Amino acid sequence: MLRRIHDKKPLIHHLTNTVTINDCANMTLALGGSPVMAEDLLEVEEMVGLADAVVINTGTINPDMRKAQLLAGKTANRLGKPVILDPVGAGATTLRTDFMKQLMEEITFTVIKGNASEIKTLLGQAARTKGVDVAEGESLDLQSVHAFASQTKQVIVVTGPVDFVTDGVRQHHLDVGTKRLGQVTGTGCMTASLIATFLGAGYGRFDAAVFGTYAMGKAGETAGNRPGIGSFRTGLFDAVSLMTEESLPEVQMNGQ
Amino acid sequence: MLRRIHDKKPLIHHLTNTVTINDCANMTLALGGSPVMAEDLLEVEEMVGLADAVVINTGTINPDMRKAQLLAGKTANRLGKPVILDPVGAGATTLRTDFMKQLMEEITFTVIKGNASEIKTLLGQAARTKGVDVAEGESLDLQSVHAFASQTKQVIVVTGPVDFVTDGVRQHHLDVGTKRLGQVTGTGCMTASLIATFLGAGYGRFDAAVFGTYAMGKAGETAGNRPGIGSFRTGLFDAVSLMTEESLPEVQMNGQ
Amino acid sequence: MLRRIHDKKPLIHHLTNTVTINDCANMTLALGGSPVMAEDLLEVEEMVGLADAVVINTGTINPDMRKAQLLAGKTANRLGKPVILDPVGAGATTLRTDFMKQLMEEITFTVIKGNASEIKTLLGQAARTKGVDVAEGESLDLQSVHAFASQTKQVIVVTGPVDFVTDGVRQHHLDVGTKRLGQVTGTGCMTASLIATFLGAGYGRFDAAVFGTYAMGKAGETAGNRPGIGSFRTGLFDAVSLMTEESLPEVQMNGQ
Repeated sequence: MLRRIHDKKPLIHHLTNTVTINDCANMTLALGGSPVMAEDLLEVEEMVGLADAVVINTGTINPDMRKAQLLAGKTANRLGKPVILDPVGAGATTLRTDFMKQLMEEITFTVIKGNASEIKTLLGQAARTKGVDVAEGESLDLQSVHAFASQTKQVIVVTGPVDFVTDGVRQHHLDVGTKRLGQVTGTGCMTASLIATFLGAGYGRFDAAVFGTYAMGKAGETAGNRPGIGSFRTGLFDAVSLMTEESLPEVQMNGQ
Repeated sequence: MLRRIHDKKPLIHHLTNTVTINDCANMTLALGGSPVMAEDLLEVEEMVGLADAVVINTGTINPDMRKAQLLAGKTANRLGKPVILDPVGAGATTLRTDFMKQLMEEITFTVIKGNASEIKTLLGQAARTKGVDVAEGESLDLQSVHAFASQTKQVIVVTGPVDFVTDGVRQHHLDVGTKRLGQVTGTGCMTASLIATFLGAGYGRFDAAVFGTYAMGKAGETAGNRPGIGSFRTGLFDAVSLMTEESLPEVQMNGQ
Repeated sequence: MLRRIHDKKPLIHHLTNTVTINDCANMTLALGGSPVMAEDLLEVEEMVGLADAVVINTGTINPDMRKAQLLAGKTANRLGKPVILDPVGAGATTLRTDFMKQLMEEITFTVIKGNASEIKTLLGQAARTKGVDVAEGESLDLQSVHAFASQTKQVIVVTGPVDFVTDGVRQHHLDVGTKRLGQVTGTGCMTASLIATFLGAGYGRFDAAVFGTYAMGKAGETAGNRPGIGSFRTGLFDAVSLMTEESLPEVQMNGQ
């Protein structure tokens, strides 16, 4: 466990999908954070007030969840709390694309993390998706992402074979991870929870984005020798829970 | 991973319960498919249009989910997409039995997979259930299932100690699996996801029903030497993710 | 598996949160029970009628779930079925605290199981929480808990480094478990499912509360040698599924 996170045990409020909600909770705990999920409109604002960071994930939206996510994001902005967007499925359906536009208009995110299709959609570019996964052969001009980050003052993470992080000033490429991470549902969602946990512990937003993304990639490498995807998945949680400051040397020097 | 599925990576749209939704996603991935869960009424039709197969599972219904499932099923029929029903809990409550009737009246399913109690309920026979599990000693006349499949042009899978698959013309008995599959929640739900993945990859509906059912049974046998149910459950995902064409020799010959 | 539970295979109806709902189902199965989750207002009463015990867990409430939980609890009382409350997050938000008051006014629980913050909130004492976890340094006067149990005729379980069980007459301290149980989400929720399974199998309410709490602590100890939290978590299910009558010798003598 990482000391700074362990000492603060930041409370990470998730408004997320029902598919990977358990994984997000356990991954937050694995890194040393404290997850909470609360989506009743009558308690969203109060819970955001208690939280150290907020995660908004659009994996399985419905009318109530959309209202709760807008309310949570706006409350986080008002209170100056870090809020991260995982725009799952952006571009896949009109509803999701429209909802992303609304989120982008009404909320300023501390970090936005998505795959190439999702980020393209947020940039207003035509994207090709396969449900909630990036379509094969999807390409993305990283300089347009950098410009978007600069213009909107949001850190953007594009996950892929090489992950890309930009805050509009700095850029970071992470050549870490394994293709097998795509064979387990929710590794993207869990990456957002990791970033949020770093944010909630007080790391800067660029560092948090790099560290969280790195942690998941590194966990994939560590677990990579387990043959089936069930064991590999278990190994991801093992690896994150056993990480120490020393696990992230390059990135720390780079980020601080 | 199986070649034909791996090459197409079919998109499997699930409208399913909150208990085993993560397992269904991971099992779809384990076999080589791409899962997506979308239940907002504003995007159901569009997502069905993108999908290669649709799974409707009644494990935890509520008014919105019931509407979404009816809409998804009717859209699948209209677009000629494969749609599979897992009638979880049919017969357990009046609501579930009534909802099944409505599903059967308004939608023609490519495959219906259930335990003896659930299939009896669909056939209009009095069934004995224990919540979402089959009651002990429940018996089912397989010839009435065969006749029902013939009459309604739907493939029916009855899971049990020996699984039974019929399309109204052909019949197949599968003596594969282990009692321990009943000690892990969602192995039935996951079987439906496996069948849907075979369907979405373009296998014929009878073959897909046999292969999906066989894959789960075989995974149970492969994982069977792991002592506790936690490890056994992990082993199910391992086994499916490591399956190859050669894992299913008899069934392929039989089904093709 | 424990004989008495195995023979009856009690049906445990859960109205619970979306974070740990799968874990609760699998833990119920691991002990030998049969889980069912049904929250549609149109079937709640009928399902309670079929169940051997009911679990109400407030981890992720919303307006419909709150109605369903009130209906389930009142129906259980009317039908004389055991009903257990896991007041997740009591004290964290006004909504949760108010909802707990309503639950306590309208329903008599067979067993209430919570951490120190949650139980303090139920007692009307000011509590400090961290989302759904107990705040560090939270203290609780156990004699006030004992008095509350006596006055309301409910068994109360306070989980913590040493667990405390009281029915207002008897008291039991359980020095079992490991801090690592707090690093996996839902171990508290799963404890409620275990208690409910003992209740549903016909154990007395004080015994069931002690046994269920003990089983989770013991599972934590058994799994404690697995290094990462992914493997540790898998080990919890393994351990419970491999428990036998002999696993609980002291407690049985104590409780019967």
